[in-house]
Amino acid sequence: MISKLIEKIQEKDAPIVVGLDPMLRYVPEQMQKAAFEEYGETLEGAAEAIWQFNKGIVDATYDLIPAVKPQIAMYEQFGIPGLAAFKKTVDYCKEKGLIVIGDIKRGDIGSTSAAYAAGHLGKVTVGNQICRGFDEDMVTVNPYLGSDGIQPFLDVCKEEDKGIFVLVKTSNPSSGEFQDQKIDGKPLYELVAQKVAEWGEECMDGDYSNVGCVIGATYPEMGRVLRKKMPRTYILVPGYGAQGGTAKDLALYFNKDGLGAIVNSSRGIIAAYMQEKYAGFGAGHYAEASRQAVMDMIADINGAKKQA
Amino acid sequence: MISKLIEKIQEKDAPIVVGLDPMLRYVPEQMQKAAFEEYGETLEGAAEAIWQFNKGIVDATYDLIPAVKPQIAMYEQFGIPGLAAFKKTVDYCKEKGLIVIGDIKRGDIGSTSAAYAAGHLGKVTVGNQICRGFDEDMVTVNPYLGSDGIQPFLDVCKEEDKGIFVLVKTSNPSSGEFQDQKIDGKPLYELVAQKVAEWGEECMDGDYSNVGCVIGATYPEMGRVLRKKMPRTYILVPGYGAQGGTAKDLALYFNKDGLGAIVNSSRGIIAAYMQEKYAGFGAGHYAEASRQAVMDMIADINGAKKQA
Repeated sequence: MISKLIEKIQEKDAPIVVGLDPMLRYVPEQMQKAAFEEYGETLEGAAEAIWQFNKGIVDATYDLIPAVKPQIAMYEQFGIPGLAAFKKTVDYCKEKGLIVIGDIKRGDIGSTSAAYAAGHLGKVTVGNQICRGFDEDMVTVNPYLGSDGIQPFLDVCKEEDKGIFVLVKTSNPSSGEFQDQKIDGKPLYELVAQKVAEWGEECMDGDYSNVGCVIGATYPEMGRVLRKKMPRTYILVPGYGAQGGTAKDLALYFNKDGLGAIVNSSRGIIAAYMQEKYAGFGAGHYAEASRQAVMDMIADINGAKKQA
Repeated sequence: MISKLIEKIQEKDAPIVVGLDPMLRYVPEQMQKAAFEEYGETLEGAAEAIWQFNKGIVDATYDLIPAVKPQIAMYEQFGIPGLAAFKKTVDYCKEKGLIVIGDIKRGDIGSTSAAYAAGHLGKVTVGNQICRGFDEDMVTVNPYLGSDGIQPFLDVCKEEDKGIFVLVKTSNPSSGEFQDQKIDGKPLYELVAQKVAEWGEECMDGDYSNVGCVIGATYPEMGRVLRKKMPRTYILVPGYGAQGGTAKDLALYFNKDGLGAIVNSSRGIIAAYMQEKYAGFGAGHYAEASRQAVMDMIADINGAKKQA
């Protein structure tokens, strides 16, 4: 799967991923109104609004980008109808040729992780039939439970040619509270990174592994160190833009082959029309604003990569 | 919420919770067949089978127990229909007067955790209406991202009188890989426990806090130490029975007031009829086997508590 992602990144010359993390307040008023008229001010109405919002953004950007990363929490907040909108988004993006990274951050004991892995990347057997639940291409995974919680994801990655990104150093302000704690002189996130590299050896797909990691754009010095320690691990980088990470910082996350990292922006793209910079588009053209924001982001990151 | 849970534990004299973690292979063949005849060998068919299976167990045990703990992964593996069965199970158990602990182990950066907290414990605003997604009473939470990933859950606990159990030391064999690593001479799980106690101070509800923790039954020595360090924190204890924890070990997890811990059993209860001990019930009476297993578990744990 990572080789497919790399192919798309190279084809579009765009090491970026659009985070489809819709909040209802991002959805233009007219679009909300139309959804509520059809489904009421209900979970169904909210789910329809975010689905239509997503569809507009995907239609306006899919030719420019290799992948999307829907954050499942933003759908889960609207219960079952919200999760149905998540599934619709996953399917639609795959139809459009995009790689879908489900940002689910699941992780549990072995038998439970096996169920998550089956539901999001793999398949279940029902009677004599094979069925698929969410069927993303890749997902994010939380490592706190250790190897036996990760192994079922590795098994599915191998069977189904899918991929995972394991949390190593997250982009949020308090990520250091546990992740930066020193163990024999080295921070916990380095120990996790070492494990990720080991897990990755089982799942190589060309020059890179189907087991990637997450390192926030907000901690570039750590990104630089980790980049060297895990050369065959793809890094999914959240935190660009709205959270404060800059393109210059991000150049450190790439290998000399120009690969090895994919940078996510969510709010910065999907709610672009709400920023001063793109306000001229207006709410009625929110998707075109997102397209412009995607083009600007690609130019920003590719520019910084060239200077590095 | 913790005071409501304690009330129910005392009323039933049963410091236990039944883990509603259905696998399709636990569902008696006749029940599977009936579901598949109605819905096909599909995700819908699987979801109907596990829902009917759950309903049988709840009907046969609700008068004996204070709470249930559905593990959402077991539903999520069947996609949207599976999650609809999860929601049906949550609602049905609440109707039966049970406290529902959603075993969801979510945890993310602040804004994302806020969406999970809203979806599982709180509410969302859609137009002028207030809607609720899953609306469990309590949920489990993963601490790897630190305080700002926990805070939104604390906020919802306070607003809505709900509760969380934060993972401290999990029951699986490889939980020590990261959780036991020494930081200034103390294991990481102790540092997490200390934070849990701090977070809990914000959310007191009687003698205990609405912020509890998870400590596996499989690590009794750690349970004993942590019990003393966090006297006002309720401990949710997985790993009894099928995973190897014994009642004698578990006595250490309780305070002198006889409270402070609630022990989960999943497979040991819901798939009791598949064990030699309860095989006499037969698949047709799987729910009665579960009832017997619940009675035996309560006697086992209360017996060990008295001896301790």
